Amino acid sequence: MASEFDLIRRFFERPARDGSRTLLGVGDDAALVRVEPGMALAVATDMLLAGRHFPDATPPRALGHKALAVNLSDLAAMGATPRWATLSIALPEADEAWLTEFSAGLFALAQRFDVDLVGGDTTRGPLAISVTVLGEVPAEHALTRGGARPGDDIWVSGELGQAAAALAALQGRVQLALPGAAQARARLDMPEPRVALGERLRGLASAAIDVSDGFAADLGHVLERSGVGALVHYAQLPGVRTGDAALDLRCALAGGDDYELIFTAAQSARAAIALLGPALDIALSRVGAIQATPRRLVVLGADGAPITPPTGYDHFAASA
Amino acid sequence: MASEFDLIRRFFERPARDGSRTLLGVGDDAALVRVEPGMALAVATDMLLAGRHFPDATPPRALGHKALAVNLSDLAAMGATPRWATLSIALPEADEAWLTEFSAGLFALAQRFDVDLVGGDTTRGPLAISVTVLGEVPAEHALTRGGARPGDDIWVSGELGQAAAALAALQGRVQLALPGAAQARARLDMPEPRVALGERLRGLASAAIDVSDGFAADLGHVLERSGVGALVHYAQLPGVRTGDAALDLRCALAGGDDYELIFTAAQSARAAIALLGPALDIALSRVGAIQATPRRLVVLGADGAPITPPTGYDHFAASA
Repeated sequence: MASEFDLIRRFFERPARDGSRTLLGVGDDAALVRVEPGMALAVATDMLLAGRHFPDATPPRALGHKALAVNLSDLAAMGATPRWATLSIALPEADEAWLTEFSAGLFALAQRFDVDLVGGDTTRGPLAISVTVLGEVPAEHALTRGGARPGDDIWVSGELGQAAAALAALQGRVQLALPGAAQARARLDMPEPRVALGERLRGLASAAIDVSDGFAADLGHVLERSGVGALVHYAQLPGVRTGDAALDLRCALAGGDDYELIFTAAQSARAAIALLGPALDIALSRVGAIQATPRRLVVLGADGAPITPPTGYDHFAASA
Repeated sequence: MASEFDLIRRFFERPARDGSRTLLGVGDDAALVRVEPGMALAVATDMLLAGRHFPDATPPRALGHKALAVNLSDLAAMGATPRWATLSIALPEADEAWLTEFSAGLFALAQRFDVDLVGGDTTRGPLAISVTVLGEVPAEHALTRGGARPGDDIWVSGELGQAAAALAALQGRVQLALPGAAQARARLDMPEPRVALGERLRGLASAAIDVSDGFAADLGHVLERSGVGALVHYAQLPGVRTGDAALDLRCALAGGDDYELIFTAAQSARAAIALLGPALDIALSRVGAIQATPRRLVVLGADGAPITPPTGYDHFAASA
C-alpha cells in the first residue's frame, strides 16, 4: 500500500501556476506565499463530514469541487479574490480511484479561479475534509455582515432552494421533473461560488453573506451583525418551483447549500447593480429592504400577510 | 441544546490582542488580516483524529494545546513567526465542559505566542480537529527542507523519544520511573513548539524540519529534498533513557510526536549555534554530518557498526 507521503505527493502536489505568488508549495513544513502589498488577507475555513454536509452517494469528484467551492463562496461573500488553499483530509482507506476523482474535482475548480493548493495533510479515519482558503481584498472595500443600514435594498443572486429541493428528491420526499431535477442536483453537488460577483460588489454593497444555512438564517446573521431588521417579500424571492408550494417555501427560506450571495446596498446603487447581472450572467433579484428594528425579519406573503420563516439548518441543533 | 453558532461564539470568539494586525476576527464569512510588508506568509495545516494522533485518554485541555502546538511546530521549522490560526472541529456532541477545557488549552498556547484565532467551523461528527496556522518570515531566510549541503553539521534540539516512551508506558509496554514518567507524558500531551529557536536559526541553519514522524523519517525528508545523505552517531543522539536499550533506540530513531527541530548548518555556524542553546534554555546536540550520497542515511552505533533505523510512523502504511 502506498504510504501517506506518496499519496499526498501524487494527488495534491502540483506545480505553482505561472505568475503565481506562491514561493514554495506543498512538500515542506509550511508553504510560503507573497501577499500583494496593500491588500488585506481574507481567511476562511470549513469542514465537510460524510453524511452530514453531503449525501453518502455524492460522487468523489463532486466532493472535491464542493469542499473548495463552499470556502471560495465565503471569500466571495467578503469581496475577496481567492489565491491559495490548504486541504486536510481523513480517509477510511487510501483509495486511489477515489483520490483521483476527488483531486480532479478540486483542481478543476482551483484552476478556474487561479487558486494554488499550498498545504495538505492526509490521514486515515472517518471521511472528513477541511479546507482553508486565503484571498486578497482591499481592506476598506471588504464586504462584511455588519454594514447594512436602514433603507438599503436586499438583493439575492441566482435561485434559492435548488440544493434543498435536490436533497428532498434524493430522500424521496418529492419527485422532480427533468431537466429541473438534474439542474437542482448539480447545484447540490457542484455549487458555483459567486467569486466574480463578490469582487464586483466591492464599493457597491454595504453588507454580504453567502447562503449556506438558508436565506432566513443567513440574512439573520447580517441583521444581527448590522443591528438592523428586514422586510422581505416572498413573491420576489427567486425560489425553486417543485410543484409543491409548501416545499418551495421551505426550500427558498430555509434551504441550505445554495451558495448564492445575499447582499445589501444603498438605493442609489440600483442602476449599477442592475448592470452587473447581465455582465456576469447571474440573475440578481431585489427582494426587500433593511429596516431599523434590530434583528426583526418580516417575510410577507403574496397576500400581504406575514409568513413565519422555517428555521435554517444548524449542525448541532438539528440532531435527531 | 446550544446552537452551533452560540458554541462558536462562546468558546472561540475572543477579541484581537492590542497591536494585532487582525482587522476582522471570527464571526464573519472570512477574517481579514494584514501581513507585514516585505514578509512572506508561511501556511501550514494539520489534522488530528481521536485514537490516531492522540490516545483516547488525552485530556481535552492537552488536546487544545496539542492541536495548535503541532502546527506552530511546522512554522518553527520554517523559521516563521506565528500570527494567526483557524480551527475546524467535529465533535460527537456539544459538550460544554469539554469545549471549556479544549479552548482553555488552545488559547493559553495561542496567547503565549501572540497568535489570534481568526476562523472557526464547528460541526457534529467523530472527533476531528484541523488547524491551519499563518506566520511571517523574510522569504530569503525561510528554513526549508531543501538546503542541506555535504559537510553541514546535523543538529537536534531537546530530547528525542520522550513522547514515544510515554505512549509505550500508556500501552503497558514499559514501566517508567517518576519523575521521568510524568515528564515524558507531558511531552506527549503538551509538546512545546520550538518557535524561538526557529526564529533564531534564520540565516544560520541551511535546512530544518520538526520531528513529528521520528528522527530517521524526518531527517529522511531533508535528505530527499536536499538531494544529500547523512552519517549520524547514535551515541550523540539526545535520546530518552527508559532502562530498556532496545526501546530507547526505537524511541530515539522512530518515535514521533517530539516536535523538536532537526536542522543542518555549515560548520562555520557552530559557535553561533552553541550560544543559542543557553540563550533559549534548550539543549542543542550535534549528532552527525551531511554527506554527498543522495538519500543514504547511515546511523553508527557506539561500536562503530551501522544500525538499521526502525521506520517512522506513517498513518496509512501503519494500518493493522
